[in-house]
Amino acid sequence: MAEAPSRAQLEVLDEKDPLARFRQRFLIPEGLIYMNGNSLGPLSRDAGDRMERAVHEEWGNELIRGWNSAGWYEIPWRVGDKIGTLIGAARGETVIGDSTSVNLFKAVSAALALRPARNKIVTEAGNFPTDLYILDGIRRFSADGVGIDTRLREALIDAIDENTAVVVLTHVHYLSGEIFPMTELTARAHEAGALMVWDLSHSAGAVDVDLNAAVADFAVGCGYKHLNGGPGAPSFIFAAARHHEQMRQPLSGWFGHARPFEFVDEFVPADGIRRMLCGTIGVLGATALEAGVDLTLEAAGTELAAKTRRLSGIFQALVATQCESFGLELASPRDAAARGAHLSYRHAAGYAVMQNLIDRGVIGDFRAPDYIRFGFSPLFMSYAEIYDAVQILHEILSSASFRRPEYEKIKAVT
Amino acid sequence: MAEAPSRAQLEVLDEKDPLARFRQRFLIPEGLIYMNGNSLGPLSRDAGDRMERAVHEEWGNELIRGWNSAGWYEIPWRVGDKIGTLIGAARGETVIGDSTSVNLFKAVSAALALRPARNKIVTEAGNFPTDLYILDGIRRFSADGVGIDTRLREALIDAIDENTAVVVLTHVHYLSGEIFPMTELTARAHEAGALMVWDLSHSAGAVDVDLNAAVADFAVGCGYKHLNGGPGAPSFIFAAARHHEQMRQPLSGWFGHARPFEFVDEFVPADGIRRMLCGTIGVLGATALEAGVDLTLEAAGTELAAKTRRLSGIFQALVATQCESFGLELASPRDAAARGAHLSYRHAAGYAVMQNLIDRGVIGDFRAPDYIRFGFSPLFMSYAEIYDAVQILHEILSSASFRRPEYEKIKAVT
Repeated sequence: MAEAPSRAQLEVLDEKDPLARFRQRFLIPEGLIYMNGNSLGPLSRDAGDRMERAVHEEWGNELIRGWNSAGWYEIPWRVGDKIGTLIGAARGETVIGDSTSVNLFKAVSAALALRPARNKIVTEAGNFPTDLYILDGIRRFSADGVGIDTRLREALIDAIDENTAVVVLTHVHYLSGEIFPMTELTARAHEAGALMVWDLSHSAGAVDVDLNAAVADFAVGCGYKHLNGGPGAPSFIFAAARHHEQMRQPLSGWFGHARPFEFVDEFVPADGIRRMLCGTIGVLGATALEAGVDLTLEAAGTELAAKTRRLSGIFQALVATQCESFGLELASPRDAAARGAHLSYRHAAGYAVMQNLIDRGVIGDFRAPDYIRFGFSPLFMSYAEIYDAVQILHEILSSASFRRPEYEKIKAVT
Repeated sequence: MAEAPSRAQLEVLDEKDPLARFRQRFLIPEGLIYMNGNSLGPLSRDAGDRMERAVHEEWGNELIRGWNSAGWYEIPWRVGDKIGTLIGAARGETVIGDSTSVNLFKAVSAALALRPARNKIVTEAGNFPTDLYILDGIRRFSADGVGIDTRLREALIDAIDENTAVVVLTHVHYLSGEIFPMTELTARAHEAGALMVWDLSHSAGAVDVDLNAAVADFAVGCGYKHLNGGPGAPSFIFAAARHHEQMRQPLSGWFGHARPFEFVDEFVPADGIRRMLCGTIGVLGATALEAGVDLTLEAAGTELAAKTRRLSGIFQALVATQCESFGLELASPRDAAARGAHLSYRHAAGYAVMQNLIDRGVIGDFRAPDYIRFGFSPLFMSYAEIYDAVQILHEILSSASFRRPEYEKIKAVT
């Protein structure tokens, strides 16, 4: 944790920041301090322009011909490969399409089928809920009497045994932001003969990920958070090339077929990662995602993850100095290197605190029962606005009137 | 089949057509005769305007707050209920989200789970391929040793027996356009104790559908064809209210949870149709779909299906008079009441014929090995342009030079 800096010091950091030029590429309303890129990334100018073209020139003028002339058909692997370069995948190991939940279903089902003699899935208690819910769906409908062993983080490693088919973990925890050591845990799963599925929803575009260096088997992740792909953007799915030939997944739709436009009755899986596709890609959502990914790629190599850590470290230091005496308790790792791109704090009146922040133009979010979260997005956030956000937080906490009982009721959304 | 009319007669029909005013609501390029609304419906002005708002005002300005302030959270059931009114569903029986393939997986899995003592699925040989591929995926991964009995249409009824859990049929065949008698076949499935899943991809928005009058159990359908929802638009899924309490489906993501924002570890299915949802809705694609559905709803009650039949009957009569001597063979039912909103013809040089038509501004499509398809969309097509399309088809077929060997190779897309 850094020493708490002054605003002037932070302005100097902004002047020297090689990523500062990206701020103007985003259309963030004037005066807003947007600390929720971990939940929904903001609109970029590029995404706005691309959507205008996709709607009017491609759909409007090209109509059905857009599948060829506008390159719609190639979107899943074209955008997949771009994301792949951000997460340490080789070419041909990543595609986009469907939601993160659906892709997790595919990845875990495929991994289970690769370990037919085993029937246990290990995952973390308190993992992002949809991950647990999807595993429950697999358990209920699986052919193999699959069981789910859901453990607290500290007991996870002990649960991985010779009956474990798959370990399913989220790289950056949605609440605490804590990072799992990817290489170490993947190796542990492999030692036991199990496969490893990583959920990168809070990682891609914000923290360092190198799937192939970690020898990961499968991964999925979210397009609408740090990839700035727009509300409900398509998700991505990765499978290591070594599994491609053997892997099968149950959502075998026509876009996962070897020759989808021959319209034959029998399913023949496409070569490689494309067999992880299912139905027709949602072109409009995928177009916005591609714009977001392209913007991140422009900035790649400029230490995105390092700026993320610096932003969150400064916020942490300022809050520690100015706000912790008001009942705010850090719920994330103290070491910036041990966490992803957001910080969570607990506060007895967390919902009211966050509503007051939002009313004052500082957008973070609330997670039941009493967590408030702040995201740190290296592409569009400045160091100085971190300072301003903490000042506003301090003003709210130190005001006698901030507690508004009607806010105590949970009305949160994503 | 009607007598072949003159262009003047068709112009009179256009003048009297109560649906003619909808043509100007679409942004179809000048001079194009678009006969492919059965594959991808065109852009409407409303959809263009709504997308502009969704991108800039909602995503751009509201950011994460859009889930409440822009009504994103309610999209699945808000748009679902609108589609429901077009297909004979009651309120609360239809939601949108995911692709048609993914929704078919949910519907068939849910139906199978409601008939645990049975393990046979009956479907049609030559059904739309993704339907067959998804059933194959269910078979491979199912807990119950499910078998698929794929029969030619004429032998289908005999296959439905006391071991049949689910019958899965497409209401309007994607190639021939032939309509299955929904009420009769659903009754036949029920007599045998089986459940009925209908794929309405080529039906919704174009032909009369009354799911509850037919006592259908489940249905799915496509948003990007006659609902004009944009490329890869979300799909819809229907489940009859009588099944809601018992039904479960394997893609149990967080949007299908009773209380998604309480972030509990255990999956508790939402009441009613919402348990058919899975992950986060693709807001941008869903927004375009809602605009398309709203436009169809404006026209509902004005005999959409009757105009569809009239358009296709006129095309058929003109082609019979002018083009059939050139080796064009009707591959659809002769009776307009027995088919949906498209006509298919076979021709030995089908791919070349269609490419020539497209080059001349008449957009239909090609399906391997030798089918050319023409769609009839009551909202944006005029009677006179049907006449013009047939003149161009006649000119191509009667020209000695239309056969271009390089086109014989199949390069078709959706």
